[in-house]
Amino acid sequence: MTQYNAPTRDMQFLLHDVLEVTKSGVPGHEELEPDFTGAVLEEAGKIARDVLHPLNASGDQEGCRLENGVVYTPKGYKQAFQAMKEGGWTALDCDPAYGGQGMAYVLATAVGEIFVSANMAFNMYQGLTHGAYSAIHAHGTEDQKATYLPKMVTCDWTGTMNLTEPHCGTDLGQLRTKAEPQADGSYKITGQKIFISAGDHDMSDNVIHLVLAKAPGGGEGTKGISLFIVPKFMVNADGSLGPRNAVSVGKIEEKMGIHGNATCVMNYDGATGFLLGELHKGMRAMFTMMNEARLGVGLQGYAVAEAAYQNALAYAKDRLQGRDVTGVKNPTGPADPLIVHPDIRRALMDQKSFVEGARAFTLWGATLIDRAHREKDAAAEGLISLLTPVIKGFQTDKGFDSAVQAQQIWGGHGYIEEQGMSQFVRDARIAMIYEGANGVQALDLVGRKLADGGGKHVMAFFELVKGFIKENEGDAELKAQFLDPLKAASKDLQTAAMFFMSEATKNPNAALAGSYDFMHLFGHVCFGYMWARQAKAARAALAAGTGDTAFYETKLATGRYYMARQLPATMMHLARIQSGADPVMTLAAEAF
Amino acid sequence: MTQYNAPTRDMQFLLHDVLEVTKSGVPGHEELEPDFTGAVLEEAGKIARDVLHPLNASGDQEGCRLENGVVYTPKGYKQAFQAMKEGGWTALDCDPAYGGQGMAYVLATAVGEIFVSANMAFNMYQGLTHGAYSAIHAHGTEDQKATYLPKMVTCDWTGTMNLTEPHCGTDLGQLRTKAEPQADGSYKITGQKIFISAGDHDMSDNVIHLVLAKAPGGGEGTKGISLFIVPKFMVNADGSLGPRNAVSVGKIEEKMGIHGNATCVMNYDGATGFLLGELHKGMRAMFTMMNEARLGVGLQGYAVAEAAYQNALAYAKDRLQGRDVTGVKNPTGPADPLIVHPDIRRALMDQKSFVEGARAFTLWGATLIDRAHREKDAAAEGLISLLTPVIKGFQTDKGFDSAVQAQQIWGGHGYIEEQGMSQFVRDARIAMIYEGANGVQALDLVGRKLADGGGKHVMAFFELVKGFIKENEGDAELKAQFLDPLKAASKDLQTAAMFFMSEATKNPNAALAGSYDFMHLFGHVCFGYMWARQAKAARAALAAGTGDTAFYETKLATGRYYMARQLPATMMHLARIQSGADPVMTLAAEAF
Repeated sequence: MTQYNAPTRDMQFLLHDVLEVTKSGVPGHEELEPDFTGAVLEEAGKIARDVLHPLNASGDQEGCRLENGVVYTPKGYKQAFQAMKEGGWTALDCDPAYGGQGMAYVLATAVGEIFVSANMAFNMYQGLTHGAYSAIHAHGTEDQKATYLPKMVTCDWTGTMNLTEPHCGTDLGQLRTKAEPQADGSYKITGQKIFISAGDHDMSDNVIHLVLAKAPGGGEGTKGISLFIVPKFMVNADGSLGPRNAVSVGKIEEKMGIHGNATCVMNYDGATGFLLGELHKGMRAMFTMMNEARLGVGLQGYAVAEAAYQNALAYAKDRLQGRDVTGVKNPTGPADPLIVHPDIRRALMDQKSFVEGARAFTLWGATLIDRAHREKDAAAEGLISLLTPVIKGFQTDKGFDSAVQAQQIWGGHGYIEEQGMSQFVRDARIAMIYEGANGVQALDLVGRKLADGGGKHVMAFFELVKGFIKENEGDAELKAQFLDPLKAASKDLQTAAMFFMSEATKNPNAALAGSYDFMHLFGHVCFGYMWARQAKAARAALAAGTGDTAFYETKLATGRYYMARQLPATMMHLARIQSGADPVMTLAAEAF
Repeated sequence: MTQYNAPTRDMQFLLHDVLEVTKSGVPGHEELEPDFTGAVLEEAGKIARDVLHPLNASGDQEGCRLENGVVYTPKGYKQAFQAMKEGGWTALDCDPAYGGQGMAYVLATAVGEIFVSANMAFNMYQGLTHGAYSAIHAHGTEDQKATYLPKMVTCDWTGTMNLTEPHCGTDLGQLRTKAEPQADGSYKITGQKIFISAGDHDMSDNVIHLVLAKAPGGGEGTKGISLFIVPKFMVNADGSLGPRNAVSVGKIEEKMGIHGNATCVMNYDGATGFLLGELHKGMRAMFTMMNEARLGVGLQGYAVAEAAYQNALAYAKDRLQGRDVTGVKNPTGPADPLIVHPDIRRALMDQKSFVEGARAFTLWGATLIDRAHREKDAAAEGLISLLTPVIKGFQTDKGFDSAVQAQQIWGGHGYIEEQGMSQFVRDARIAMIYEGANGVQALDLVGRKLADGGGKHVMAFFELVKGFIKENEGDAELKAQFLDPLKAASKDLQTAAMFFMSEATKNPNAALAGSYDFMHLFGHVCFGYMWARQAKAARAALAAGTGDTAFYETKLATGRYYMARQLPATMMHLARIQSGADPVMTLAAEAF
């Protein structure tokens, strides 16, 4: 039986000591006083621990089932979903005009981590709804917004994203689902969509599908794609539910993990749909959902790793096996706890320094989103657009590795399903794949985001890091332990970016062959930057003598570990990148 | 539906071009003419493709079941096991005195790879039997050998290893299973063992359990441990089966993977056991099995990765998604195949260069075992003893990563169980854990093997690499592409070893904190060495104009990839190692 306790202390440290949200100047951040955020996080932690996490393993074992066209979620899900709705947890950062609480995204993100850690599969029903809510909020007519958003804010109705078809995932230009215009302005949607998370279930009154399809006259490829709202039940003019729409669940996929979430094949058989946003410009509207979803998936990467880490740590303290080589630590017991062994500590420190680095990076990213949305700050918008593939790709790769390490600490017991460690690994695995497989994230980063606006976003990032180093290098210890390694890593990243620029004009594959390493290199520099910022804040708190010394000392030691043990990966990634396209591209396809 | 075809061409290249087995001078190797090994490998490939692999997915889905004390294997297993027995595949390298074929271990290893790739869970029934066979062969009395070995060689009776108990795995000193001496010289064995692979099943007439237990008078810890033969059915003097022994299956564990193998809780309730080897010296006899098992598990690491790679490659060639940025490759189709994309190639080359490097390393290791066993060559014995934890730890870590990459190429389809890619990942995961978790391998390497015999084995390894470089650096292209990177990597390894030596006297944790990185660093150097040897052989074949140019060109390109893209990991591992114990050990256990 696994356990989960929300890391509220670390979240408070990040919000207030590191990000200093109340001083950010972003409208809405001034409300985020420590007492307030602390109370919200504690309450979220309670429901996560008492309601959501107890369903994590049982939901995995039971899974969802399809009977006579109806999807049933695992036992207890319905009641838990009701509790989430009643607690107002589905509405945190939604628009007050539609019943939301209008909270800053940064706090909603911290709360989101807690829920995902506790039960990733369960939280996806709400997460997908939020994505669909955002797309309708950004691109819908006033009428559409009034019809759908109030119900989606409360999760009385949930939402989905329908992109993938059997023959195409990433390459949406190939999609075949058709939208035929009707006399009343609606469309008839016909086609099959697969891998639809939360595609149908028994926890809400209606499901609002957002569906990519091709309407006539749109041209080839992605240009001809539009986005449609296709409700499971038609909505009457008075807001009540009408007849069932011609959309049905073909089957529920048997997956490696996230069994508690119904991943559906959806069949659209002339279903009534309503255009969302502009005709033939569906990709743009889709990306509103997609960018949000990618950040959400990047969060899943470390949130699951956090839960896995907590259970690895508990086991490492509890399991008695072998003796400390430097001297017995548990003389009255038959052996010392696992945690005395250096290699167990290495694995724990890898996990701890990853999760805390990821949390800092993600919450900082969330403040950029608040700045972009609430202040219409184009620089922040550009920066988070650059960093989104890093957050998604790097954090889900490392999050999976971290969950594997947590499972490893349990030894053979980690491989037995009833212990729960395997589930963390199986669940974490999907985050590397969906919402754009991580190779696609690397392509997006190197092929698109890096050069966007003439490279100004990446230049801004380098300036940010450089400025931080310059501003703080008077602190000799901070400099030696954090700023110098950060500077070296950042230089590796710049060298890699320059290599791409100089080589790509000759051969575009030179950059693409190194894209995956670049994404990881970038991730390490971002984490190094966030660790340096955390270290600065921890040192300031220690100097100020505000108490909680143990927390700040641990924070510094964890950061030093990251800088010494993880950041050296940048030199390996740079060397790989600098080997160029030839080693990767030289073989003809037939030669493999 | 996955597919598998035995890589016999590559195996022939390794046996004859690289390892030149017929010229090795090892007794028995002279029989390994290319025609002979080719015929054996082709036949093994047929049974793997036609009999074993078709049961891989179905065995995973069905799993084993326990009904009224009887363990049933998945549908088709019994017939397949019969086919393996009838084909003589269970007896390849066993002693002719007991019905074996007396073949060299290196060829048996290549055949073993083929069977494991085709169906890892199935092959474990035979693999465990071979381990038990070896222990009885090495430590049994003449009577015990005559009683058990002929039946185990044919797998009419299978074998198991019983080490782990609920409260202890690695730390066997804690074990509680008791052996009480009886008047007739036998023992009554009482206790519970867990995680017993192939613990019971319906494919053999008897199961011969080798059980670690404590007999009176042996003292504390591992010193008091003895090894016992405990048959499921007692064996009469005439070799026929007698009554059932007091050993039973408590349950079959639900695991993350290898569902086709029955992982059992075994209960010994005063079961009759017979001492194997010397009283209170069971650990030594156990290590006969264990060392063999570790090599077998290291083989599993890359064998599963090979099968996963084959299916990733097939998908990459077949799946049409996106366009080659340097120009359309499939103008008549809706898109180009995945394999045109640089990052897909990177992932394929990572897998291919790993699997071929691992195969070379493992087969070379097998020749060392032949040399040690058949020539009583102590240097070869010392070297393979040093390399065993590297083969086990490095190859299973990388094999798992490789299977994950293969799954990743399938995108969302890789996460769906019916496609079969998830099974490779779930199966490969156990290899990092059992027969000594990989952290324990790292500890064995750094804490024991490195210093063994005053460090002479590791010195011999360095001399071997140095000698090879020196001997071949007249070939400028080989030097630039292979020998120079190998030299640099080997230097990193030596620097790390020297760091351990200089630091460990002050603080043993300085070495142990870097043990895992050292194991990986060592693995990369071994692979680099094997790639350089393969490159030399391929270049010689090309120069000789013996034909099959495409194979040798591909081999060289794959090797160049490894040297350019994988070997740079050594500098990262060295940097981590050189950061010493402090980052790892500084936190008190309570501070985590």
